[in-house]
Amino acid sequence: MNFQIQQIADWIGAEVVGDPNQIIDHFSAIEEGTSNGISFLANPKYENYLYTTEASAVIVSKELTLKEKTKATLLKVEDPYSAFAQLLRAYEAAIKPEYIGVDSSASIHETAVLESSVYVGAYSVIEGGANIKSNTEIHAQTYIGRNVVIGEGCEVYPGVKIYGGTIIGNNVVIHSNSVIGAPGFGFSPNSDGGFDKIPQLGKVVIEDNVDIGSSCTIDRATFGETRISQGVKLDNQVHLAHNVFIGENTVIAAQTGIAGSTKIGNKVMIGGQAGIVGHIEIGDEAKIQAQSGVTRNVKTNEKVQGTPAIDYTTFSKSYIHFKNLVSLDARVRELEQPLNKTTEK
Amino acid sequence: MNFQIQQIADWIGAEVVGDPNQIIDHFSAIEEGTSNGISFLANPKYENYLYTTEASAVIVSKELTLKEKTKATLLKVEDPYSAFAQLLRAYEAAIKPEYIGVDSSASIHETAVLESSVYVGAYSVIEGGANIKSNTEIHAQTYIGRNVVIGEGCEVYPGVKIYGGTIIGNNVVIHSNSVIGAPGFGFSPNSDGGFDKIPQLGKVVIEDNVDIGSSCTIDRATFGETRISQGVKLDNQVHLAHNVFIGENTVIAAQTGIAGSTKIGNKVMIGGQAGIVGHIEIGDEAKIQAQSGVTRNVKTNEKVQGTPAIDYTTFSKSYIHFKNLVSLDARVRELEQPLNKTTEK
Amino acid sequence: MNFQIQQIADWIGAEVVGDPNQIIDHFSAIEEGTSNGISFLANPKYENYLYTTEASAVIVSKELTLKEKTKATLLKVEDPYSAFAQLLRAYEAAIKPEYIGVDSSASIHETAVLESSVYVGAYSVIEGGANIKSNTEIHAQTYIGRNVVIGEGCEVYPGVKIYGGTIIGNNVVIHSNSVIGAPGFGFSPNSDGGFDKIPQLGKVVIEDNVDIGSSCTIDRATFGETRISQGVKLDNQVHLAHNVFIGENTVIAAQTGIAGSTKIGNKVMIGGQAGIVGHIEIGDEAKIQAQSGVTRNVKTNEKVQGTPAIDYTTFSKSYIHFKNLVSLDARVRELEQPLNKTTEK
Repeated sequence: MNFQIQQIADWIGAEVVGDPNQIIDHFSAIEEGTSNGISFLANPKYENYLYTTEASAVIVSKELTLKEKTKATLLKVEDPYSAFAQLLRAYEAAIKPEYIGVDSSASIHETAVLESSVYVGAYSVIEGGANIKSNTEIHAQTYIGRNVVIGEGCEVYPGVKIYGGTIIGNNVVIHSNSVIGAPGFGFSPNSDGGFDKIPQLGKVVIEDNVDIGSSCTIDRATFGETRISQGVKLDNQVHLAHNVFIGENTVIAAQTGIAGSTKIGNKVMIGGQAGIVGHIEIGDEAKIQAQSGVTRNVKTNEKVQGTPAIDYTTFSKSYIHFKNLVSLDARVRELEQPLNKTTEK
Repeated sequence: MNFQIQQIADWIGAEVVGDPNQIIDHFSAIEEGTSNGISFLANPKYENYLYTTEASAVIVSKELTLKEKTKATLLKVEDPYSAFAQLLRAYEAAIKPEYIGVDSSASIHETAVLESSVYVGAYSVIEGGANIKSNTEIHAQTYIGRNVVIGEGCEVYPGVKIYGGTIIGNNVVIHSNSVIGAPGFGFSPNSDGGFDKIPQLGKVVIEDNVDIGSSCTIDRATFGETRISQGVKLDNQVHLAHNVFIGENTVIAAQTGIAGSTKIGNKVMIGGQAGIVGHIEIGDEAKIQAQSGVTRNVKTNEKVQGTPAIDYTTFSKSYIHFKNLVSLDARVRELEQPLNKTTEK
Repeated sequence: MNFQIQQIADWIGAEVVGDPNQIIDHFSAIEEGTSNGISFLANPKYENYLYTTEASAVIVSKELTLKEKTKATLLKVEDPYSAFAQLLRAYEAAIKPEYIGVDSSASIHETAVLESSVYVGAYSVIEGGANIKSNTEIHAQTYIGRNVVIGEGCEVYPGVKIYGGTIIGNNVVIHSNSVIGAPGFGFSPNSDGGFDKIPQLGKVVIEDNVDIGSSCTIDRATFGETRISQGVKLDNQVHLAHNVFIGENTVIAAQTGIAGSTKIGNKVMIGGQAGIVGHIEIGDEAKIQAQSGVTRNVKTNEKVQGTPAIDYTTFSKSYIHFKNLVSLDARVRELEQPLNKTTEK
């Protein structure tokens, strides 16, 4: 990249304070700013960096009143974070390689349907009956099983494996080595002391605008469906068991696992490495702290922590006392002292 | 699928109460039953759904006495859950695509031996000295290292990577992107402040009827073997370190990790996201609750929870008091009150 | 393998006590020693096994004074563990298959540069602008994105996916199905109640002598870099988010996750399934116990445990009292008894 500050200001509708002709050739965080870099200041907590940064340009709020001098040229906007994100997206779109055509080494079944402008990378396999809609990128070494439907404008990255019957909406992104639609974990004890498999005949449905990180595992339903509603964002190594339902715009951080048939509401925030047992319901806009183990229903807007997870405030307060249990025990021993003496007398 | 209720009743040996001629075209859970669906009632907890379900047929126990009317045709059997599972298995077998032949794009070393009716999918690699026994399916994009032995009737799904020397029994299923036989995590500090690798020269042995989920990692032994005994069921993203031993018919839920050289008994149940340290033993039929961190031997039949894991009942009772630590502390402060006054006087 | 004890003694510079002509054909742990095997005794805790082992040879310390008779031939050295590791490494090097040449099925872009003695396995994809330096092994079915640089003497195992722009040093090992350089998890809420993507324009830098296990996910930076410094060892299924920095010779056990922008010092030891929140710093040589959830900075040399993680000793002591909360509560109730009586009077 190589732009004048004025060009950038024009894209994001910013007022320039300082030299508009300087050249910008990279992005950076404000605390790591270097010459010819552009950064942003959204969180007032970081304002001090504005006066010490070596960044050539900083996107700031219109409201900001400078407390000291800054060497940086300022780009003043309504919402600095959004403006910076908009700039990043424009730049990303400009540099994104164009993925076109079907690699001659891809193995595509004669009954699979690829609509217009579909990309298929090397050594990918698309099985019979699959339907890939327009402008979707199927990158190298992916596996698309029988009768899988993938909507428009999706990106499926190298190594993703999608089992037969999975239905995926539009603008869905799935990162490398995630596995979608493998059978759920269903076994019933048999009379030999072992287990019989419960066939997993359902499917996975992923709605529009879902993002799935690397190495996630989303199992198909026993019957019916495992469903990820529109706008959901999954970080890496997330595990969703059979028949899980995730509501719209819910965000799940890395390494979280959700057991079978659990229903998660809309706009729920789930921290990393959380675990949620099967057959429960998590209400809309609930917050599950990282590493919590949820074993009961969680209400709308409720915030929980701990294993088993309880009300967040209760957990936090109890944990303060947990750290002081040695002294609490000592205080009780102290109180017991006169009693014991009394008893001994 | 499209069957008359009577046909299904004949397969599972059920007595029909209601219309035997209705058409069944899908399976469902009883609480989600819809017209032309078949469901089952095994858990008395769900009996109320029997009187409200829209399912056309429900498999129920011979023992059941109806408390209200139901619209559904009943199929009465000894064990409704088993009968339903049997029906699912029959259906699954009927619809399973036939995997035959070796894809011309597979790379198979000239010294690899493929017995009768082996399937090898596109872009799979089978290295020298490997031996794949009859009726085994090696799906697309898998890697089978040197001298790997895979028994009869196995299913190895797309993206599985099996390092050289691994030995796999019969009827083993391994789902997508699992990695079997990578070297264990062995390093010893050296005089430069860094680490030297401890070569991992052992192997992984997987016995008959083992099921392994997606994206598991099973490391090979330093020397000797990492062994998964027959009938073991692993959910997704399970990690087994070098020299781990898992006894027969043990079940391990998703995202659990077991450190090096630990021995797990038979019929142990391990919940999700549990962690077990190295060099310990877990007795037969022990139960490890989800997210527990086990740091000591666990006895036969013992049930543990917590990090570090302790007796389950003790943990549960202590946790109730943990939730009340604020009030316990307040009670102690209350008790201290008169003492303090006394002291002050 | 098939060696005389004397040969082995010569390699590792050991003094032989016992029969130097016996044949050794395998390695084993001392407690599992069998005839014609060689083992070692480093930990005095295992000395009893020396007198009962069936191993034909045992490497022991020069300092060892036998308390009983042993059937095994002894190889006396300064440091038995190092000598055994040295022997294992020599053996491993001798048996390692030679990987040479570029498989004709690999897809290598015309602008990619492969230096001397590079191996590329079947169905691997190397995109434009990539640069693979000499003596590096790119195993089957891997994906090397645009402009990726991989140094000398690296080993990249089947199924690894490396996104464009990643920079890897020399002697780096990456095991199967790990994903390097996928975009970090960055979304900002938008006015529609959903999320906009924050483009992730940075990269991953991996320095020399790093080892990465199977199925790890290392995300690229938002801008700038996610960096793994030299000598770092990652076990399986480790997750590193965008802009994480890992200092030299730090060791991270399996299934640990580190959130965005966190800085880990040198020689830190992190147990399995630990989680570390974003934007904090962990000092050099700190120790994070397994399953801990770290939510604040950790000092140099500090050892922490718990969720949220606190000082290790405090946690351990508090946990002892946690196990006894039922009795602590009972003791408080006992103390309350006379007061209540008093109150009642």
